[in-house]
Amino acid sequence: MLFFTQCFGAVLDLIHLRFQHYKAKRVFSAAGQLVCVVNPTHSLKYAPTRCAVAQTSTEQSSLPPCHHHEAVHDPQLVPCMCPLFSCPWEGHLEVVVSHLRQTHRINILQGAEIVFLATDMHLPAPTDWIIMHSCLGHQFLLVLRKQEKYKGHPQFFATMMLIGTQTQADNFTYRLELNRNQRRLKWEATPRSVLECVDSIISDGDCLVLNTSLAQLFADNGSLAIGIAITTSKVHNSEAEI
Amino acid sequence: MLFFTQCFGAVLDLIHLRFQHYKAKRVFSAAGQLVCVVNPTHSLKYAPTRCAVAQTSTEQSSLPPCHHHEAVHDPQLVPCMCPLFSCPWEGHLEVVVSHLRQTHRINILQGAEIVFLATDMHLPAPTDWIIMHSCLGHQFLLVLRKQEKYKGHPQFFATMMLIGTQTQADNFTYRLELNRNQRRLKWEATPRSVLECVDSIISDGDCLVLNTSLAQLFADNGSLAIGIAITTSKVHNSEAEI
Repeated sequence: MLFFTQCFGAVLDLIHLRFQHYKAKRVFSAAGQLVCVVNPTHSLKYAPTRCAVAQTSTEQSSLPPCHHHEAVHDPQLVPCMCPLFSCPWEGHLEVVVSHLRQTHRINILQGAEIVFLATDMHLPAPTDWIIMHSCLGHQFLLVLRKQEKYKGHPQFFATMMLIGTQTQADNFTYRLELNRNQRRLKWEATPRSVLECVDSIISDGDCLVLNTSLAQLFADNGSLAIGIAITTSKVHNSEAEI
Repeated sequence: MLFFTQCFGAVLDLIHLRFQHYKAKRVFSAAGQLVCVVNPTHSLKYAPTRCAVAQTSTEQSSLPPCHHHEAVHDPQLVPCMCPLFSCPWEGHLEVVVSHLRQTHRINILQGAEIVFLATDMHLPAPTDWIIMHSCLGHQFLLVLRKQEKYKGHPQFFATMMLIGTQTQADNFTYRLELNRNQRRLKWEATPRSVLECVDSIISDGDCLVLNTSLAQLFADNGSLAIGIAITTSKVHNSEAEI
């Protein structure tokens, strides 16, 4: 009987997973795209205490690294960049990915183009959906955040950051695409370095921003599918033209 | 002396116009696009009094026409759709375009792809930038509005409406594109009918929405260039796929 129940549960899980994949595939046309189902995490960090230095700076491009704790004595060391938890960890940039995977259980996906399927969009703010994305020899951190910038009006903010320096990040362009209900919204930009604070990127609004009603138009049964593509950056055609 | 002053003024105007065109052409790559410099108009209508019926309806697709005055006795007649002024005019849908041109001085432009260059983005809300666009045998009304949905936080809303019925509008797709500073934002949707109220489209947020800081990133010297393209609609690839 126990065996039967377990088998039935496993079959149900498979059907559910298949259904989620099917939904995301319906939304995105390119064959062979990897669909990643991302569950939400209620943010345990209290946003306003983070990155006070970064947020008062008027110069975005020269934002200092986001220090979550007292001081980093070795300039080669960087603090933990996990947007979800306050964490006393510090280490070299090269080992940030393994720290985020092992300590904060953030999944990592391979592939130039993936579909990020964020579930349970209805959950109250602040909520984060996070994955890492390995592509073109680098790792990127994708953050979708539901946050109330204006009280009582939650919005969704999505951005992609390179786990590396801003000089390295300048070599790439990321694209986020929503496509449903005869509407299509595309955002393309140079990723910021993860050394900048995700909070300051979101408070600047320099990312894909969706109000709740638009997010509902793009969502399917409470899940939002975001197509993600990363390319090596070339100067935009229009800007290259004289 | 007067002749000299006038000549000098005309030359200055030409240089200014050329400069505005040059700026817009730099932003958009497609050769031969018509650049239209659109000046702002401070909205004289008081938004909350408009379209009370439309805004309380929960069913967007069945919104009634936006009545600005007491009653329209002949169902063949429609009220004036000018988003700027309260106007007692009513007439047949076929003559709305000539009414908007002649009475409200709204310019009309020809061409499948144009660049809408909205000047003086810094002006306080509520402010509208409006043109009509003649394309594929139909006329469209493009509205860019600066409005404070949340007090103290003005946002920009851009939408395109067909001057015709929703059934006619369903045959088209419009695209609005911003492209500057290594950022690109594209919005594609089916135009709404001008019989719906622009206020309800904006209050639903079912349009291109920009916060002020993002608008500043896309603006050049206080002007925002929006590339506009209209195509006959085909079912989006992704949604046609099973």
